[in-house]
Amino acid sequence: MKIAILPGDGIGPEIVAQAVKVLNVLGEKFELESAPVGGAGYAAHGHPLPEGTLALAKAADAVLFGAVGDYQYDTLERALRPEQAILGLRKQLGLFANLRPAILYPDLANASTLKPEVVSGLDILIIRELTGDIYFGQPRGVRECPDGAFKGQREGYDTMRYAEGEIRRIAHVAFQAAQKRGKRLTSVDKANVLETFQFWKDIVTDVHKEYPDVALEHMYVDNAAMQLVRAPKKFDVIVTGNMFGDILSDQAAMLTGSIGMLPSASLDANNKGLYEPSHGSAPDIAGKGIANPLATILSAAMMLRYSLNKAEQADRIENAVKHVLSQGLRTADIYEAGTTKVGTEEMGNAVVKAL
Amino acid sequence: MKIAILPGDGIGPEIVAQAVKVLNVLGEKFELESAPVGGAGYAAHGHPLPEGTLALAKAADAVLFGAVGDYQYDTLERALRPEQAILGLRKQLGLFANLRPAILYPDLANASTLKPEVVSGLDILIIRELTGDIYFGQPRGVRECPDGAFKGQREGYDTMRYAEGEIRRIAHVAFQAAQKRGKRLTSVDKANVLETFQFWKDIVTDVHKEYPDVALEHMYVDNAAMQLVRAPKKFDVIVTGNMFGDILSDQAAMLTGSIGMLPSASLDANNKGLYEPSHGSAPDIAGKGIANPLATILSAAMMLRYSLNKAEQADRIENAVKHVLSQGLRTADIYEAGTTKVGTEEMGNAVVKAL
Ligand SMILES: CC(C)[C@H](C(=O)O)[C@@H](O)C(=O)O
Ligand SMILES: CC(C)[C@H](C(=O)O)[C@@H](O)C(=O)O
Repeated sequence: MKIAILPGDGIGPEIVAQAVKVLNVLGEKFELESAPVGGAGYAAHGHPLPEGTLALAKAADAVLFGAVGDYQYDTLERALRPEQAILGLRKQLGLFANLRPAILYPDLANASTLKPEVVSGLDILIIRELTGDIYFGQPRGVRECPDGAFKGQREGYDTMRYAEGEIRRIAHVAFQAAQKRGKRLTSVDKANVLETFQFWKDIVTDVHKEYPDVALEHMYVDNAAMQLVRAPKKFDVIVTGNMFGDILSDQAAMLTGSIGMLPSASLDANNKGLYEPSHGSAPDIAGKGIANPLATILSAAMMLRYSLNKAEQADRIENAVKHVLSQGLRTADIYEAGTTKVGTEEMGNAVVKAL
Repeated sequence: MKIAILPGDGIGPEIVAQAVKVLNVLGEKFELESAPVGGAGYAAHGHPLPEGTLALAKAADAVLFGAVGDYQYDTLERALRPEQAILGLRKQLGLFANLRPAILYPDLANASTLKPEVVSGLDILIIRELTGDIYFGQPRGVRECPDGAFKGQREGYDTMRYAEGEIRRIAHVAFQAAQKRGKRLTSVDKANVLETFQFWKDIVTDVHKEYPDVALEHMYVDNAAMQLVRAPKKFDVIVTGNMFGDILSDQAAMLTGSIGMLPSASLDANNKGLYEPSHGSAPDIAGKGIANPLATILSAAMMLRYSLNKAEQADRIENAVKHVLSQGLRTADIYEAGTTKVGTEEMGNAVVKAL
């Protein structure tokens, strides 16, 4: 089984190194091959997603991704900026289903800015459509405003679009995920304003007929943003489009107060996937050896479960992470009085030892 | 001075009645005229925004709006549903600047689901553009997908658009509001993905040159949703587009835990405005006499300040509301042990008495 390792920028290389260490002690035969991506891709080959990197990602059975972005690339033209790599990989690999768990580990209950009774035991799965919507819809650009009160001025514009098949396939992923969990699915839309999301709602309602054992609820996106603050534990699985999912999955992650703990998976139609931590490249702490590698290690666990068919090994890693937390080991981002502060490397070693 | 009173549906009539009572004891000469809107408009005249209601709103110096929506209108075709009234009023009256304060009253600090240290003293002003963006952009609809992997299938689509002048005028409102407060403005965009919001960012940056005393920061919308959970007090004024503003202003309101307390103003270029509570029509509690009228009463205060040039009267109302809170009076939504639970009418009377 071939795994493409794309460390990226900032803390990416440090945290990915720990996940690689973990993969190497499982006793499985993985072929790991690395390539530069994001700013590192630009620095090496003049493009955030170099051809060789894309070819490797396509050839591999799964991709382990760190994070991209660093100060020195902020002034590049948009097409060359690091985040274009992640958009390009999603689109080119057809990774339409983004799975983002928002889980509050009991040992980290204090890290949340929300009251313990509101978030303790939180366990939501957000499923975000990842290759459609206004992220990729054409036409888009800056043009002369063709009509209305501002006719003749410059205007920026983008196109939100969802085709029936695009909605159906993500709805199936969501209903099936709900079947394996609490059997409740919330589809988030803005059907009261947007044609795209009235259509989304109609199609999700239709797909629901095939999953009578799942309770489906429709919720407007503004209300969802409120309910995530008011009573987040009421959610089980949430499914939504690319743009709303970008916002709500980050909001939900932050409810836990420990975004350094949250993995993510982006899957294609055959469960090939890209796995990355939910947090960013944190250039401010890069190279200091203090970043939290657990979200990346847990992303490797998701990879084993979803793409490599090794659910037992995934369980082993997840249990090892729980074990080091219960031992009181904490990186700086989740440290609190009474626990033991450790660096990136030590945390990785502790997980290896727990395995 | 003529004020159009549009009570609407659900709890709308009950809460607006209390605000009218308050307006009537100020000792000013207001001409108040009511008209049906939303479901009530549909019931009376077959349209959520009847012609007479629109004409009244246009003729008035300001509009006091309750809330719209009720179960029996949920199955109407979209063009006739209650919320079309509010979209129609915004567009027809040119109410492009939506001001939504998110304030946590010290007396209500416990109502929040966030820890007291995270939200106590919270005082954010969100300025949402209200007549542009994907809310109104043409073309939109359901069509045959013209290209790509889903070509030939049905697809829903909408157009996000912002013209230069549209961005400039809301940016001016935001910079000027920041000048009167903490002199910090956060412009929320998604410039890393959307052409519309790269353009937005460029124009806001340009307008900033006229306000060198205000510190401007740009933030991606997903990050803003996170920071509102992590450290909401770091914000002073936030400005953003219609769609992102819909989501973030509701999220920010819910941080206070007392959305029944939050007013809003929607202003045109001449400070004529529509004033409404930030909460909805709550049909589940309509007619029970338990709804919180304070957001509507505080909306009337905003109306006096922004549209009717009566800042002193606005202060009087705001102080009266603080006074009833400090007396321990609470409607059911903000009730906690040790306070006195009162109904809609009693709460309105208490504010009148405090005046
Ligand atoms: C970097 C950016 C393009 C990306 C997105 O908006 O999808 C990021 O926010 C994410 O959620 O992975
Ligand atoms: C009712 C709906 C159309 C409206 C909106 O999305 O603007 C509401 O959510 C609001 O924020 O006033």
